[in-house]
Amino acid sequence: MKLAIDAMGGDNAPEEIVKGSVQAAERYPDLELALVGDEPRIKQLLGSGSSRNIEIVHTTEIISADDEPVRAVRRKKDASMTVAARMVKEGLADGFVSAGNTGALMAAGLLIIGRIEGIERPALASVWPTFDGRGVLVLDVGANMDAEPLHLLQYAAMGNLYARYVLSVDKPRVGLLNVGTEPGKGNALAKAAYPMLEGKDFHFVGNVESREILNGVCDVVVCDGFVGNVMLKLIEGVGLGMFDALKEVFMAGTVSKLAALALKPGLKQFKKKFDYAEYGGAPLLGVNGVCIKAHGSSKARAFEMAIHQGRQFLHHGVLDQIRMGAKGDESR
Amino acid sequence: MKLAIDAMGGDNAPEEIVKGSVQAAERYPDLELALVGDEPRIKQLLGSGSSRNIEIVHTTEIISADDEPVRAVRRKKDASMTVAARMVKEGLADGFVSAGNTGALMAAGLLIIGRIEGIERPALASVWPTFDGRGVLVLDVGANMDAEPLHLLQYAAMGNLYARYVLSVDKPRVGLLNVGTEPGKGNALAKAAYPMLEGKDFHFVGNVESREILNGVCDVVVCDGFVGNVMLKLIEGVGLGMFDALKEVFMAGTVSKLAALALKPGLKQFKKKFDYAEYGGAPLLGVNGVCIKAHGSSKARAFEMAIHQGRQFLHHGVLDQIRMGAKGDESR
Repeated sequence: MKLAIDAMGGDNAPEEIVKGSVQAAERYPDLELALVGDEPRIKQLLGSGSSRNIEIVHTTEIISADDEPVRAVRRKKDASMTVAARMVKEGLADGFVSAGNTGALMAAGLLIIGRIEGIERPALASVWPTFDGRGVLVLDVGANMDAEPLHLLQYAAMGNLYARYVLSVDKPRVGLLNVGTEPGKGNALAKAAYPMLEGKDFHFVGNVESREILNGVCDVVVCDGFVGNVMLKLIEGVGLGMFDALKEVFMAGTVSKLAALALKPGLKQFKKKFDYAEYGGAPLLGVNGVCIKAHGSSKARAFEMAIHQGRQFLHHGVLDQIRMGAKGDESR
Repeated sequence: MKLAIDAMGGDNAPEEIVKGSVQAAERYPDLELALVGDEPRIKQLLGSGSSRNIEIVHTTEIISADDEPVRAVRRKKDASMTVAARMVKEGLADGFVSAGNTGALMAAGLLIIGRIEGIERPALASVWPTFDGRGVLVLDVGANMDAEPLHLLQYAAMGNLYARYVLSVDKPRVGLLNVGTEPGKGNALAKAAYPMLEGKDFHFVGNVESREILNGVCDVVVCDGFVGNVMLKLIEGVGLGMFDALKEVFMAGTVSKLAALALKPGLKQFKKKFDYAEYGGAPLLGVNGVCIKAHGSSKARAFEMAIHQGRQFLHHGVLDQIRMGAKGDESR
């Protein structure tokens, strides 16, 4: 099992990326990692204690957060992300992990690695913290803006496999995002998708409302990439805004500062519940290779978790199962 | 100016509805209120101190939260909400306010009162608290699931007028909900709507991301009713869930209980910032009469605010302005 690592992508690259990779390499001796990026810098970060299951692939370019994704992937042939994706395409790696530009990762997955035969559109799937601590997998969160009913069915099938084998959920409950729980609710897309999701070989629990998603009513939620992306960013915005507003309350005076101090351990626990680092990266499902997006601000621990997800993905042969499922769709 | 009040709609009806109505009637002597509902109960609640600008219209039926909206509006001819809407249609009132079943209110608006000529689809507009305390008007939050670009343009024009005259925002900044700020981003709807929103007689500020909506980047946000409803419920879910999780932190032990006590005034202030009661009701824009949905759990103060919005709506002739704008759309 070999994963190509985009060592130059993300806010804390390459330091934290290399550190997280070393941690993962130590934890999983069966895993080989190819750190793709600026060799002298990576070598320096690895120091003398480099692991036997880490190699370096030298590249000279970087795709930044501001780069226009498709153009960057097409033009920057020697960027760390482009090279990592090409290694997957050429069979030199089984998958790649990057904390870099999300749009570029999706473009690299689609344009360089390509889709699994029979999968109409890849979907970016993201694990969100829930108040019960289990987490929920939501897809698509932005790969495909205008989804059709068949796309949602394929998201559901792929999300089910990912939740089962990578997130170790026994019998994932798959829900359709909607504005009400009754069948027949929603926009044209949701109305058409609902009957297609029934009676398939995953556990469809019907419509779920956004209000309930974070309460653990299901393990997998499918929606189009526009809505998924809007929800993802809204939760981020509400969460951050509330933390800031709370901080103001705590910092208002001496008494409240002391009080906040007393609450610190509990609040830390509280914040940890919503820490993306505990939940790892977002897989781009439906491309012909493992492709994991780690959060842009990933530190070593978060990046290690993203690599862990990539390993689980490979270990359980999830790709082959998606391929088989997609063939089933075609022969129907 | 006369408003019909659905005295029987909402979790706290008729008590809080009547109380809020009396408060509004006292505050605004120029306003006439028709309390529509069970006359004996309303009379009892009004007591002897009833205002001279309040009358009662007796009805025998109630549309409950569980009623299927369209069917209920069609069949329950003597329900308080249906009668209130019919008073608007027949010119016996200039508008109606209800804290009852949202779907039924939209159905009553559309089926009984009807659309303004030239307005393709009514939109439910909702004021959300923002972290800067100004609030933002979002529409559509659920009246029309599958919007077309022209609908978004009409939402923008109506939202602009409502923000200006009812919410007293000087020169409302109107944004298009999208997954990125650059023009050309988004799904087919957003891409097609963007150029239509440019150069109109409102201040269009371009695409806005969901993450930024609650930070006060604009005063009015337009989106289709599916996405708007999903956002509305997601914010509710995240907010409630975070408050509950915080409560757990506060109640964890004696020290944290004491600490929470010390923080209480600040936290109260914090919670008030996000209190819908301060922000009032949601207008159904585009129907041929004032039509305001108060929050289902409205107490007297929140309901009074919803009536206040209805009054502002009438006072500034917003309906006529929407009518004129819609004619402009047609003659283009």
